[in-house]
Amino acid sequence: MNSKLFLILLLVMGSVKFQAQETSLQEIHLMPWPQEMKTNNSDYSISEDFSVFIHDAQDEDSRITKAAVRFIRNMTDKSGVFVKEGFPNAKGIDGSSASLHIYFDAKAEVVMGIDESYTLSVTGTGIEIHAKTDVGAMHGLSTLLQLIKVKDGAYAFTGVEIKDNPRFVWRGLMMDVARHFLPIDVVKRNLDAMALVKLNVFHWHLSDDQGFRVETKTLPELFKKASDGQYYTQDQIKDIVAYADDRGIRVVPEFDVPGHGTAFLTAFPELGSKKGMEYSLERYAGIFDPTLDPTNEKTYEFLDKLFKEVTPLFTDVYFHIGGDENEGKHWDENPEIQQFMKEHKLKDNHELQTYFNIRLEKILAKYGKSLMGWEEIMTPNMPKSALIHSWRGVNEGMEPGESLIKAVKNGYQTILSNGYYIDLLLSVDDHYLVDPMPDVALTEAEAKRILGGEATMWSELVTPLTVDSRIWPRTAAIAERFWSSIEVRNLDHMHERLNTISQFLELIGIQHVKSQEYLLRNIANYQDTHGLRQLTTISEPFKIYSRNAGGTQYKTYSPFTLFADACAADAKSVRNFRKLVDAYIDQSDASAKEELTTYFKTWEGIAEQLKTIAPHAPLVSRVIPYAERVGEIAAMGAKALENDRISEEELRQLKNLVAKKEDPAVNLDVELAVAKDIIRLAEYLVEK
Amino acid sequence: MNSKLFLILLLVMGSVKFQAQETSLQEIHLMPWPQEMKTNNSDYSISEDFSVFIHDAQDEDSRITKAAVRFIRNMTDKSGVFVKEGFPNAKGIDGSSASLHIYFDAKAEVVMGIDESYTLSVTGTGIEIHAKTDVGAMHGLSTLLQLIKVKDGAYAFTGVEIKDNPRFVWRGLMMDVARHFLPIDVVKRNLDAMALVKLNVFHWHLSDDQGFRVETKTLPELFKKASDGQYYTQDQIKDIVAYADDRGIRVVPEFDVPGHGTAFLTAFPELGSKKGMEYSLERYAGIFDPTLDPTNEKTYEFLDKLFKEVTPLFTDVYFHIGGDENEGKHWDENPEIQQFMKEHKLKDNHELQTYFNIRLEKILAKYGKSLMGWEEIMTPNMPKSALIHSWRGVNEGMEPGESLIKAVKNGYQTILSNGYYIDLLLSVDDHYLVDPMPDVALTEAEAKRILGGEATMWSELVTPLTVDSRIWPRTAAIAERFWSSIEVRNLDHMHERLNTISQFLELIGIQHVKSQEYLLRNIANYQDTHGLRQLTTISEPFKIYSRNAGGTQYKTYSPFTLFADACAADAKSVRNFRKLVDAYIDQSDASAKEELTTYFKTWEGIAEQLKTIAPHAPLVSRVIPYAERVGEIAAMGAKALENDRISEEELRQLKNLVAKKEDPAVNLDVELAVAKDIIRLAEYLVEK
Repeated sequence: MNSKLFLILLLVMGSVKFQAQETSLQEIHLMPWPQEMKTNNSDYSISEDFSVFIHDAQDEDSRITKAAVRFIRNMTDKSGVFVKEGFPNAKGIDGSSASLHIYFDAKAEVVMGIDESYTLSVTGTGIEIHAKTDVGAMHGLSTLLQLIKVKDGAYAFTGVEIKDNPRFVWRGLMMDVARHFLPIDVVKRNLDAMALVKLNVFHWHLSDDQGFRVETKTLPELFKKASDGQYYTQDQIKDIVAYADDRGIRVVPEFDVPGHGTAFLTAFPELGSKKGMEYSLERYAGIFDPTLDPTNEKTYEFLDKLFKEVTPLFTDVYFHIGGDENEGKHWDENPEIQQFMKEHKLKDNHELQTYFNIRLEKILAKYGKSLMGWEEIMTPNMPKSALIHSWRGVNEGMEPGESLIKAVKNGYQTILSNGYYIDLLLSVDDHYLVDPMPDVALTEAEAKRILGGEATMWSELVTPLTVDSRIWPRTAAIAERFWSSIEVRNLDHMHERLNTISQFLELIGIQHVKSQEYLLRNIANYQDTHGLRQLTTISEPFKIYSRNAGGTQYKTYSPFTLFADACAADAKSVRNFRKLVDAYIDQSDASAKEELTTYFKTWEGIAEQLKTIAPHAPLVSRVIPYAERVGEIAAMGAKALENDRISEEELRQLKNLVAKKEDPAVNLDVELAVAKDIIRLAEYLVEK
Repeated sequence: MNSKLFLILLLVMGSVKFQAQETSLQEIHLMPWPQEMKTNNSDYSISEDFSVFIHDAQDEDSRITKAAVRFIRNMTDKSGVFVKEGFPNAKGIDGSSASLHIYFDAKAEVVMGIDESYTLSVTGTGIEIHAKTDVGAMHGLSTLLQLIKVKDGAYAFTGVEIKDNPRFVWRGLMMDVARHFLPIDVVKRNLDAMALVKLNVFHWHLSDDQGFRVETKTLPELFKKASDGQYYTQDQIKDIVAYADDRGIRVVPEFDVPGHGTAFLTAFPELGSKKGMEYSLERYAGIFDPTLDPTNEKTYEFLDKLFKEVTPLFTDVYFHIGGDENEGKHWDENPEIQQFMKEHKLKDNHELQTYFNIRLEKILAKYGKSLMGWEEIMTPNMPKSALIHSWRGVNEGMEPGESLIKAVKNGYQTILSNGYYIDLLLSVDDHYLVDPMPDVALTEAEAKRILGGEATMWSELVTPLTVDSRIWPRTAAIAERFWSSIEVRNLDHMHERLNTISQFLELIGIQHVKSQEYLLRNIANYQDTHGLRQLTTISEPFKIYSRNAGGTQYKTYSPFTLFADACAADAKSVRNFRKLVDAYIDQSDASAKEELTTYFKTWEGIAEQLKTIAPHAPLVSRVIPYAERVGEIAAMGAKALENDRISEEELRQLKNLVAKKEDPAVNLDVELAVAKDIIRLAEYLVEK
């Protein structure tokens, strides 16, 4: 069975199964979806008497106590309820009188594979969370928060019985802080968001061609010469690791070697594979040549010194050495390296890199760390203890997940990121339907080696201002893929729930909505933003790296406050428009026709509104040619609908209009996300 | 001359002088307003070739280099211009080719009284900043950023010649992080904002009845037992001090003693003035009895230990010991303290507190610190080296600034906060017209002792989410009062400029606008917010502590996500409405009548819109009774305008409606800010 067919089959199975459940479950907007859930029609009202009791609570500094305090604050912020007691286990609250009881057996050490299961019972008379570990109990709190709803004009928790546990042990989000530095507060609010959707691995990409982001006391040149002053102090790193640990999240650091090495070599050019080269921090995006010299003993002395200093900052056993995208150009060009390869019988660059990786693995072992790396590290001699991070796919000329299958068959543990590259700016649907478990026959042992997956937030085109809208809410759906049953894959229900989780993400501090509003104000230079806002509902930033083609359109210090930055991967009106087109084509639905016409009329007016503000908003001027094109397309659409037909010639014109691109010099970099459906509608009308 | 008359005279003088200037100056929206400025009609266009050269630049870590990088980022974020060079003194940029040249004589040590002057010249061919110190040069950059405007459809810097320096050396903002903790990122973005408006003292109120916010290694009980886990590590404090220093801002810490001492006594009850009392962190707001025992030697041992540890964290010489609002109840009740007073011939609590303060002054002197405190520390025997922080006024039954005059006449240096209590939520006008220099005859020496002033952000009713909107933009106008000439006091021009600085504040990271939008979304439970938004344009939170009357309506953990939190001190439509009423009354202006009618009609419709969303938004239900009352008032206003008259009876009804208060139980806590002008309009119409 090919994988596409398999997916379709699963989809059908998923939705059939879904419809067989009680309809009231449909109204529950949890994400990720729990393994087992029953409604009991017995909601718990949120009142001023709400209180929390943690059974066998440890001191106030305990992880669960802090989580419970955050829970209460979130609940009161959302509901506006003035609780009498703002802390768990307050005086007078005991094992009998509390609203919410939390039970767990033991405080977990946050390592891979701990018990994260919990049960949650909400009834009109009380709420109970039971778990083996405090981390499981915290997952119960994340679920409970999302159960807040309005009932009879007041806030309440939906009455449910939930039994829940994760499908995969490794549920990660990678944040690249090298291309664009992301300050501590940005990292922290994203850790809060991860906890909300039960992600448990924060993969921290700390070095790349554009910067090295860690204070290093034994090698101060690294952050002093290669960070533009944008780095984390060691105290800040410890603070983040503790903050993550408090949320049940492991932190896996990545120091990318031997390629992606410009930052290293800006500080230590003598370790480079090209002698005499003057290295300086990269300002563009792409794959670059600077590479550590694996034949130079000083390289290993340097990495030993670095790893000795940085490994104790991180408590997790895994340590990511990158290892990706080394094209070996400087190796090929360097006669001494070629000589070394001959002497050591290393027949190609892969073998040389394996030589390098194996030496790194020994260094890391000395400091108690297990090596992981991007899939390129998987060469024949690589020890089986290495964890393989599968990432390449169609864009790299490979089958999606090809390396994942190869890894498990060769005895490696592995995680999947291909399919979860959120920087591609694809629709959430594209990520949601990718499963870490491939559609091939695997032995039980092989399947067990697939630990889970990671969404990857590469930051070539994101800044602290936009990163939240690039990660969220889409990553919540990926988190569901890692946590929930493979059968949970109904797109409509996912979208409804994604909309709700987006609101809870804002509640706990994610700035995706706020920042978009701000960007529109900035673009409009504080004039009326409604035309721009309408345009964002049908426009999406260029996908799959076609924004910043060649990596040289934007530099690291270019402005990311443009219209494309205010647009998101799933423009708001696209799905609804598509459904209206479906309804119109399939059922000649009259109300669909009316709504479609309203859409077209609205879009026709955007350019005019923008023109009224453009004289005082230079950034709006850049948007107008696009808005005018959208207006023309909409006018043709409206006319076609009105006449109930469109001529072949008009269709051709429409297709030309849709295919037209704006002047790349204005960096507009957005596409009309409803274009496909407009064409579909027109093609239907031409045949009519 | 009484002070009111003096103010009016100044106002008239100010505006006369103002109108005598070139009108083009009116269009420049700088805040604070420079001492000398001429326009030259020669603007500098912002293009991709924009570059910065710092003459005699130090290393990349230098304060001015970092400030220049921030400047470039802000400029490109605002303008969307893709500069070729993102860093000052980049390769190929030199003393002749750069757009912006920065010259200064020496790196300043950030202490009180340094030279902060600068000159700024912008012409079509280039920009120059000259200063004695790098801090002065940074002020030049803050001014330059605000000169960004739109010209011929593109962004440019307005051509000007500026010569500028501050009027007062002490231009402060106090942030209370004890009542509600404000995390590092909140403090940092507010330091950025301070730098934008040239404030130079961050007064950090670190302890109070509700919490002690500093990690203390020698006295770990303090932060462990008395912070609810919300405190700054010492590394974070050093980070903030360095961050402030980078922006030319001094940091003055405050540890409030002997009153406001509940947090101290929660950790160390044995130091309290009431023996056997069980202290615990205060959750309410107000003035409380827990007070350190000044007759106990252990109190001084404790404070010596604390100050020994914390004083090195702060580089500034000033150290604020609070000293305010000690009512001495526990002193009166404690026979041992009474006995001690007799033995030491201390005839009242004031003398006992002086005894305490003098001992503190000696301890602080040992650690190289000068004592400052709230005005209550100014008792006859207090050494003249103490700096007096004048704060009491009408609310405390005193003449505004009374203690300021007394202080300088008694030989103390002093700063003024009375008049700058931004937590009173008064209009910016009320603060703007208060001058630190009192309206009494002072000798030159006395006047010189008035160092400046501080806006005070007490945090009983603010959280990280709302604090920005409570501080900004009003504090920008206070910053102008501290920096600019006393003659700059035209309210209309200030309001225009305040609107512009508000946009720049958002550019550099202040969240006042974003958070309001979010709060409305939360209140509306993500339904249509337009009715709520309209209501915020005419509603202001209760002023002068009438919100939270008695200090027990809100606890520290109560929700501050309510409608009152989404409203600000200067509701948007109030000034415009007032001017329309003026125009209508003074000139029977027909267009004013029309606009007033439009306002009324809009307000009439708010309650209906709110009712459509209330079923799914419990927090909206709380607002409806108020919105209905506003609607009734507006309907009466519309009717009166339409009929061109109102009866005595209707006026009486209108006044009753305006005077009516909402049920305090719903914590609405806002007032109709246009009420006064509606009554004024009605009174005019009844006489007609």
